[in-house]
Amino acid sequence: MEDVRIIEIKASVFEDNNKEADELREYLRSKGVYLLNVMSSPGSGKTTTLSRVINLLKDEFKIAVMEADIDSDIDAKKIKEATGVESIQLHTGGMCHLDAGMTRQGIDNLDLNNVDLVILENVGNLVCPAEFDTGAIKSITILSVPEGADKPLKYPLMYSVCDVVLVNKIDVIPYFDFDLEECKRNVHMRNPNALVMPISAKNGDGIEVFVDWLRNEIHSLKG
Amino acid sequence: MEDVRIIEIKASVFEDNNKEADELREYLRSKGVYLLNVMSSPGSGKTTTLSRVINLLKDEFKIAVMEADIDSDIDAKKIKEATGVESIQLHTGGMCHLDAGMTRQGIDNLDLNNVDLVILENVGNLVCPAEFDTGAIKSITILSVPEGADKPLKYPLMYSVCDVVLVNKIDVIPYFDFDLEECKRNVHMRNPNALVMPISAKNGDGIEVFVDWLRNEIHSLKG
Repeated sequence: MEDVRIIEIKASVFEDNNKEADELREYLRSKGVYLLNVMSSPGSGKTTTLSRVINLLKDEFKIAVMEADIDSDIDAKKIKEATGVESIQLHTGGMCHLDAGMTRQGIDNLDLNNVDLVILENVGNLVCPAEFDTGAIKSITILSVPEGADKPLKYPLMYSVCDVVLVNKIDVIPYFDFDLEECKRNVHMRNPNALVMPISAKNGDGIEVFVDWLRNEIHSLKG
Repeated sequence: MEDVRIIEIKASVFEDNNKEADELREYLRSKGVYLLNVMSSPGSGKTTTLSRVINLLKDEFKIAVMEADIDSDIDAKKIKEATGVESIQLHTGGMCHLDAGMTRQGIDNLDLNNVDLVILENVGNLVCPAEFDTGAIKSITILSVPEGADKPLKYPLMYSVCDVVLVNKIDVIPYFDFDLEECKRNVHMRNPNALVMPISAKNGDGIEVFVDWLRNEIHSLKG
């Protein structure tokens, strides 16, 4: 596999994460850069989904990816191999989430004059990442079919803070006891405004719907 | 569904979790009670696996279950319905893990004179629960096939602290790109002593192997 840059992230020194997040968001807006924060459980298909999305958007926008993980550089390499776009791996030093100060450490390693869209793949975790505003314009979460439709009941904050819920691995619905309508009801119990989009990152089903949403988002930012 | 007791857990006031954990472990040993800590990602099948295990052991041992979640009482109800054993739901107040002090708050709600085995289903999370000794005799983690064989590479501590890794949902291996031997190698890279046991909580395959291990563990404690 190709080599990728690995950035060792340090714990943030800022006391007020919300203020830091607002400042980072404003800075990115001023540079015309759209930051998307992607969260989910481990193994729900974040990297595969992002590879699909990037391949559909990379001819329209300049894209960079920041892959956060405790260890390994598997995801950054996968993204670079699958899409060819710049991908850096952020090592969190055991920390279970990214906050705005940590996100900025990643951003500072990108050439923002040459980027329209930065995708942040957060640490795989349904609890802690939901508690910290990263400074992203929008946040999404991926819920995969094998995890079950009850996740919004058990991890309320994650589904409250997300603008879009991608229901991934719909290609394996026949092999699991999973009710898509029940899943939607559970998401909307936590967040009536969340958009729920069923996809299969494996075969590409539904990805265009999300790509259309993201394309509109980026155009809105750029005005 | 039947009603279950819900215990609202408070943050621990103890500074030295390892000391608290050792004290809880010694207390449980003195009462002849075996505490098993069960960890995994959200949706990997902890509750279904435990229902199978409990139904195979409940005629031999007196069992109690503590289900930790941020919200809902779904899992405690599921266990009680599926097995009939006493199951209490621990609400963590948004916290991403249980430590020894929090575990003790659950234990204090059980009648230990009437229990041989307490099963603690930790919060679904591959990061934070691995950082805190709960006071359990042994800890296990469940890695489900749809999550992928690379999880030990990304979440090193979880696989370092576990005595047993149950590889669940092996019934759906044909529908996923999952290599069991690669998974075992990745687990053993983190922990050469970890026992890796493939299971299907859905159809029961492999569960007897784990039940035999747990039965021996409990007998060893009781001497």
